Amino acid sequence: MEKYSRGQRIGVITKKLIENPNKVIGLNYFTERLNAAKSTTSEDIVIIKDTFKALNLGKVETVAGASGGVKYVCSVTDEMREEFVSNLCNILREKERVIIGDFLYMTDILYDPDIISKAGHILASIFIDKDIDYVVTVETKGIPLAYEVAKMLGVKLVIVRRDNKVTEGTTVSINYVSGSSKRIQSMSLSKKSLNKKSNCLFIDDFMKAGGTAKGIDDLIKEFDCNLVGIGVLIDNVESSEKIVDNYISLIKYYGIDDNGMAILEPSIT
Amino acid sequence: MEKYSRGQRIGVITKKLIENPNKVIGLNYFTERLNAAKSTTSEDIVIIKDTFKALNLGKVETVAGASGGVKYVCSVTDEMREEFVSNLCNILREKERVIIGDFLYMTDILYDPDIISKAGHILASIFIDKDIDYVVTVETKGIPLAYEVAKMLGVKLVIVRRDNKVTEGTTVSINYVSGSSKRIQSMSLSKKSLNKKSNCLFIDDFMKAGGTAKGIDDLIKEFDCNLVGIGVLIDNVESSEKIVDNYISLIKYYGIDDNGMAILEPSIT
Repeated sequence: MEKYSRGQRIGVITKKLIENPNKVIGLNYFTERLNAAKSTTSEDIVIIKDTFKALNLGKVETVAGASGGVKYVCSVTDEMREEFVSNLCNILREKERVIIGDFLYMTDILYDPDIISKAGHILASIFIDKDIDYVVTVETKGIPLAYEVAKMLGVKLVIVRRDNKVTEGTTVSINYVSGSSKRIQSMSLSKKSLNKKSNCLFIDDFMKAGGTAKGIDDLIKEFDCNLVGIGVLIDNVESSEKIVDNYISLIKYYGIDDNGMAILEPSIT
Repeated sequence: MEKYSRGQRIGVITKKLIENPNKVIGLNYFTERLNAAKSTTSEDIVIIKDTFKALNLGKVETVAGASGGVKYVCSVTDEMREEFVSNLCNILREKERVIIGDFLYMTDILYDPDIISKAGHILASIFIDKDIDYVVTVETKGIPLAYEVAKMLGVKLVIVRRDNKVTEGTTVSINYVSGSSKRIQSMSLSKKSLNKKSNCLFIDDFMKAGGTAKGIDDLIKEFDCNLVGIGVLIDNVESSEKIVDNYISLIKYYGIDDNGMAILEPSIT
């Protein structure tokens, strides 16, 4: 069987780690695939670990024990976050984004893998130590972001529906009052979606008063689960009093000014 | 400024390429970041390219010219696809997935980043040569899959809504007849979503008669765009006559048998 050089092995190991964030890959996977000794593979991993650390590319952690191995954990410096967020504010300030009714058009941003993968990276790195079991979101616009966060955290995604689907089996539905419009809305989730006693992270694209986040908190309590964090891309600061506290946002949105320009600034997190 | 070893450079280059599928990264990005000569960096890239090729890990392509550089392109062997699809069939055959009304519960699968990233990888590699500009899907359950395909193809995702939202500005709405239930439904898309003359790939989780795919074709025609491919995870073969042809599926679903077991098999693509 072929032997590979250090550079070749490092290329293969790096790819596997990056494609499986926060998942432990057993050393055997690499030693067998690359026909290399355990000690050699461990040296390869140390090189990747030290280089990533030196260049702020994330953490590579070795996990000891029977189910041990190595995993890649995302991590973002304050500088990287600030650069990303300030660029995104500039994009969102483009004048043609302000549409009838003084809404800010941002759907393209929310579905753009280039932007959403970076935003997901940042949010995941904020919640990485919270021992999350599920990322929860509510349809539709926050789904790509929530998916990215779930992937970076190495956990499953759960999407709460606005309606009840026959393909979901038994569901739990709750009613909640939208904090901004004061309308009663409902959302539902399949009984099969969440294991009891799980830690959930709620991720959404946009927060107004926080009625949805409050509703999610109520809903997952029905599953005996805990909401251990809330992360949103954009926080509408102009909204009426917030009914949730303890959430993280990347951008604060202050509405549209008299010149028809969106007022946005990076959140300090 | 620090110098890096070949192994270190290859780790950094591989990470960047894998995180940006089908995007050309200029050589300068690496020479500056790694303080390395262009020739050295080119050698690093050749090593990654040859190793990935030898181990069936995808293609690394160098692009000549002023906007030149290097990109990673996903590619999946028949063997890898077959292994993934046959595993997924086994998961879907689990007896407790059959729910009241003889529906197959598969929501957990459709939102699981482990599974969906691999399925997205496979679908993207099938359509990689089609010069796709946008991946289009319709809410809700196919969104994670469509997002992964868009990311692997290095293009934007567009999500068609079932309703009309004020935050979308001017929208184009069409009515279409669901091929299986014969009900008239509508879907809408913001005018800002697609550039004219673009090539679109429709990705969805499940196909019954194909009414939705037909509707998407009609809708994007309103934007002067072309539907150049249709890819679905699961094709319900039991459905009434298909109203679209020329689509790719990974799994064929034949309904529930007399013993309450789902009948599924890999599609031959």
